[in-house]
Amino acid sequence: MVIRVGIYGYGNLGRGVESALRQNADMELVGIFTRRDPDSVHSVTGAPVYAASAADDFKDQIDIMILCGGSATDLPELTCRLARSFNVIDSFDTHASIPEHFASVNASAEASGHVALISGGWDPGVFSLMRLYGEVFLPDGKSDTFWGPGVSQGHSDAVRRIPGVLDARQYTLPVEESVEQVRAGKMPELTIRQKHRRLCYVVAEEGADKESIRQQIVTMPHYFDEYDTQVVFISAEEMKEKHSRLPHGGFVFRTGVTGERFSQKETMEFGLHLDSNPEFTGSVLCALARGVYRLVQRGESGCRTVFDLPPAYLSPLSGAELRAKLL
Amino acid sequence: MVIRVGIYGYGNLGRGVESALRQNADMELVGIFTRRDPDSVHSVTGAPVYAASAADDFKDQIDIMILCGGSATDLPELTCRLARSFNVIDSFDTHASIPEHFASVNASAEASGHVALISGGWDPGVFSLMRLYGEVFLPDGKSDTFWGPGVSQGHSDAVRRIPGVLDARQYTLPVEESVEQVRAGKMPELTIRQKHRRLCYVVAEEGADKESIRQQIVTMPHYFDEYDTQVVFISAEEMKEKHSRLPHGGFVFRTGVTGERFSQKETMEFGLHLDSNPEFTGSVLCALARGVYRLVQRGESGCRTVFDLPPAYLSPLSGAELRAKLL
Repeated sequence: MVIRVGIYGYGNLGRGVESALRQNADMELVGIFTRRDPDSVHSVTGAPVYAASAADDFKDQIDIMILCGGSATDLPELTCRLARSFNVIDSFDTHASIPEHFASVNASAEASGHVALISGGWDPGVFSLMRLYGEVFLPDGKSDTFWGPGVSQGHSDAVRRIPGVLDARQYTLPVEESVEQVRAGKMPELTIRQKHRRLCYVVAEEGADKESIRQQIVTMPHYFDEYDTQVVFISAEEMKEKHSRLPHGGFVFRTGVTGERFSQKETMEFGLHLDSNPEFTGSVLCALARGVYRLVQRGESGCRTVFDLPPAYLSPLSGAELRAKLL
Repeated sequence: MVIRVGIYGYGNLGRGVESALRQNADMELVGIFTRRDPDSVHSVTGAPVYAASAADDFKDQIDIMILCGGSATDLPELTCRLARSFNVIDSFDTHASIPEHFASVNASAEASGHVALISGGWDPGVFSLMRLYGEVFLPDGKSDTFWGPGVSQGHSDAVRRIPGVLDARQYTLPVEESVEQVRAGKMPELTIRQKHRRLCYVVAEEGADKESIRQQIVTMPHYFDEYDTQVVFISAEEMKEKHSRLPHGGFVFRTGVTGERFSQKETMEFGLHLDSNPEFTGSVLCALARGVYRLVQRGESGCRTVFDLPPAYLSPLSGAELRAKLL
């Protein structure tokens, strides 16, 4: 049995999903759907590329559509709309808007009889699972999530919008001393500034006022003002040579107390070290798509998240194989 | 809604479950069942203690029975038998016998209309979940599990059976250099000896031949002969003072390759650092018991494992609360 997959949107994440599908023998890529001119887009694996507007013609040939549409601003509308014709999965990551997004996607998917999974990927996604397991296995404790070292696309874009900036790359870095305190089970109360710092590489226009650019970055509300931020000016060549990759990662910690006098400490730590953020995200989306397909086979419909998928559903192996091999 | 729980077996693990139940406000301890004389057993929290033989009288007052019965040799018979009267959960950990145990418990639970979850705890259990997530999120890769530093009860018992040994405590230790290689994404092929070493603290009878005891330990088939083992003779006082706790832990790693040329490396690492092995195991069993109860409410029956429980089922929070707080 092969799961027939479509990719909707073909940027870094779409290419990540395309590569990952080759590593999942029970999945098959039917086509890539793009809002650009399909003739101008060449897929990495030679998979056919179609116009996004033609997606509905493939309703009966695609078991699940993986949404890799660019920005978080697209997804609220896009996931709802595509859930009318397809089982879908997205990687919606605006944490504060998840309840609202869930409600509207759920209405759309229930009405059309499809299953939609929102907020797949590694955070939200894999890290969310780890936060949940941390809380349930150690109900009396403290959780901490650290991100990085890694490139934040949103922060890089914010710096690029400053006049005089030609290009920018922002790395989010966990504050090592704080990570070590949490790892040692000290359960410290940490401020925003104590958890992460920010490092910006900037290519400035010739003659630009670098000190003014630096000031505008470090004082930018929400993005930088609550963090210690270092700004480093580099050449366009150095940017291209040293900062064109998209590494990321981070840690989810849970420290809890147990026992008769709540005096014993237990620590759970989950870490990710990713050479490629979009490729790992794509790989996670493939496994979650398999899980969604299992729900479809069970006759379910509506919106789901990673919390709703039995782990076994993510694997191509049978229950007996999983128990013999991985339990 | 309160989940009514029974504890069957009252050793270290039973006490761990008893303590953990106080940290789960939606669960209530109905009673502890012991094969010893109940009048001789005093529970930590003052919960009533009953004779194991009277368990069936509590059929209608207990939603799930958590089996904390001693050795792995008890469970094959015990879980099957109790699944006739109760929804049950055990921590069966003889990896090679899991398929057989699953089959017999499944037959018993299906016949009686109960749900049974086997092999709960941290390994099998939490580590099994991490192995599964590792394989599905990075299908093209390599997995490694390291255990320790921690006390192995089975190995300690094996040393105690050697003539001339009064007491023994065996620590399993991960080989740090190997852990570092795996952590760095080098995907080394490691032998048994390269993954773990063993450290035994032994109290010998006065006048015993220590060199002979040491030889018998380090050459003991399966338990020690494939490992580098260090034997340290200590006094009974030192044993009591320094080695009466039951710490444990370990790591599950998954390193995989992604991308167009499978050239990018992604590493997932999960680590546990436990002051108390039985207390953490007990805490995990409580969360899993909640998951079993949810399956019961859905009208299911038969044998399950951690792989079958949607993560959300382990939490007392609603789906909406989980999405808002943890996703």
